[in-house]
Amino acid sequence: MSDRTEISELGEFELIHQLTKDVKTTQPSTVQGIGDDAAVIDRGDHYELVSTDLLVEGVHFDMSYTPLKHLGYKAISVNLSDIFAMNGTPTHVTVSLAISSRFPYEAVNELYDGIKAACERFGVDLVGGDTTSSITGMMISVTAIGRVAKEKLALRSGAKENDLICVSGDLGGAYIGLQILEREKMVWKDNPEIQPDLEGFDYVIERFLKPEARADVIEELGKLGITPTSMIDISDGLGSELLHIARQSQCGVRVYEEKIPLDASTITQCQEFKMEPSVCALSGGEDYELLFTIPQSDFEAASKSEFFSIIGHITDAASGSAIVYPQGEEIQIKAQGWKSI
Amino acid sequence: MSDRTEISELGEFELIHQLTKDVKTTQPSTVQGIGDDAAVIDRGDHYELVSTDLLVEGVHFDMSYTPLKHLGYKAISVNLSDIFAMNGTPTHVTVSLAISSRFPYEAVNELYDGIKAACERFGVDLVGGDTTSSITGMMISVTAIGRVAKEKLALRSGAKENDLICVSGDLGGAYIGLQILEREKMVWKDNPEIQPDLEGFDYVIERFLKPEARADVIEELGKLGITPTSMIDISDGLGSELLHIARQSQCGVRVYEEKIPLDASTITQCQEFKMEPSVCALSGGEDYELLFTIPQSDFEAASKSEFFSIIGHITDAASGSAIVYPQGEEIQIKAQGWKSI
Repeated sequence: MSDRTEISELGEFELIHQLTKDVKTTQPSTVQGIGDDAAVIDRGDHYELVSTDLLVEGVHFDMSYTPLKHLGYKAISVNLSDIFAMNGTPTHVTVSLAISSRFPYEAVNELYDGIKAACERFGVDLVGGDTTSSITGMMISVTAIGRVAKEKLALRSGAKENDLICVSGDLGGAYIGLQILEREKMVWKDNPEIQPDLEGFDYVIERFLKPEARADVIEELGKLGITPTSMIDISDGLGSELLHIARQSQCGVRVYEEKIPLDASTITQCQEFKMEPSVCALSGGEDYELLFTIPQSDFEAASKSEFFSIIGHITDAASGSAIVYPQGEEIQIKAQGWKSI
Repeated sequence: MSDRTEISELGEFELIHQLTKDVKTTQPSTVQGIGDDAAVIDRGDHYELVSTDLLVEGVHFDMSYTPLKHLGYKAISVNLSDIFAMNGTPTHVTVSLAISSRFPYEAVNELYDGIKAACERFGVDLVGGDTTSSITGMMISVTAIGRVAKEKLALRSGAKENDLICVSGDLGGAYIGLQILEREKMVWKDNPEIQPDLEGFDYVIERFLKPEARADVIEELGKLGITPTSMIDISDGLGSELLHIARQSQCGVRVYEEKIPLDASTITQCQEFKMEPSVCALSGGEDYELLFTIPQSDFEAASKSEFFSIIGHITDAASGSAIVYPQGEEIQIKAQGWKSI
């Protein structure tokens, strides 16, 4: 090969775009292929949803502070989050695992305990997988399958001007949890005698190590009779996900900074790290909350819910995508995303 | 952890058994979970099939002699093989990829060219995936989805006493192809001036580098009106797959050594390596042919087919599983399988 283009020059989203731009679908059952949280396949009386994720040691998890049971739980939970992000219900998962001889059976068993605990918690069946050796680290690949009633499907592309933008739970906690774990790892590296001091950080650390896919939010929306016009889960950070909705729905967004939901402990920890809590929420990622849009007509029903907050609204595409600060200043949202290391 | 059991002590099949023995399924749609080539999910008027495979650099492929386009093609083909092994038709795939910065965009693009070529060849839609960085090597995880008419499903567990054992194509070629590639790699390592000499080895090398999933065999069985009573694809070697059928169908097998189909070039190359061709077929693996059983009543229809050979028959479980040599000697088949490295 004479030309060499570094993947880091492209970034994740451009890489995927380049690789898949000429992919055509020919199966009549394919409703949605690449480009949403899950693929959508027509099964007659309902849609099937399929999503897949890959977790790589040293990239997505650090064995020095990740309990294996939590890791197994998280691997399932983050994948199911993609099914919920289509307004669906997960039903089945497959799990593939590459492990080096560094891990004894007992470690793999612990990982599987977490996988099985998550399957039980969310009522999904573990129906297959592959187990193989790896030269170096551990890798976990999960595929989740789910279903959604046809009229309930929420793609990224359905947001309409004036729709309200909602987000579940609170944001930024997972990111600040990770910062604390990284800090304690450094302290421990410098002086292995010192035990990590994680007291008082339970909430944000659990947000990072053991995120809960928001099955309850989908249930709540069903109870309220609300079908989101668009939806995505927050894996890369609120800012990045807002841009996905804006691009795929061909619209703009206005999100009010003071409306972004933050837990008290996230705010406290951010102050300690001298970080703006809203910046953690916008750029941090790994919160696995649901970001969605609803018609204005659902405002009354939505405003009563304790499961999510209304944080802004959809505008026309020409207005672009911005965060509105309390003084009225608007800051354009910039694209984030994975970079090759 | 006080106890440490090396995974290599268990081996692949025992590891999977230990990890998944207490997995229960609760979804009413789950027909078959872990333990066959693919999971089976009831979709009302048909069964859905789901299979997943993980290919790891340095374990499943060696970059020094694996063209990336072939690798992409193979990653899809071997997964679709699992769907065919249920007597089904593949419809959709997802592909996840972990890549280190060692690979430029052009390399990943070539890999995707192979992935897309295989999808086109088999008429399946690429509908999703995940792309991430890796610290070291490349890893490819593919999930294949397919469908089968309910009355056509072939599990590993349906073989009955006196059924005929059939195998498609010819065996052992992929294994001997790999031996040639490994030998030329060694020559090249010792003296990089010498170009690899692969002339005349096209067939066996292609068997290894670019296996074709046997869509045509499934089509042929349909035309002949034959529904196999059991089926599995040959990834670990004929011996290992025979034992899977014997164990899961609670029966024994008798396979006639002289009936094992071998290509002329496989025989020639085996002689050069001083290996028994039937040993390559039994223990080699990676042929991705289909091994299946049919009722005796289908003998006449089956014996006319050029797509597969009748190599033996099913016995009662007490008779065990053996290869019958021309002089009448019976050798018990031993379990093979992946070992942790």
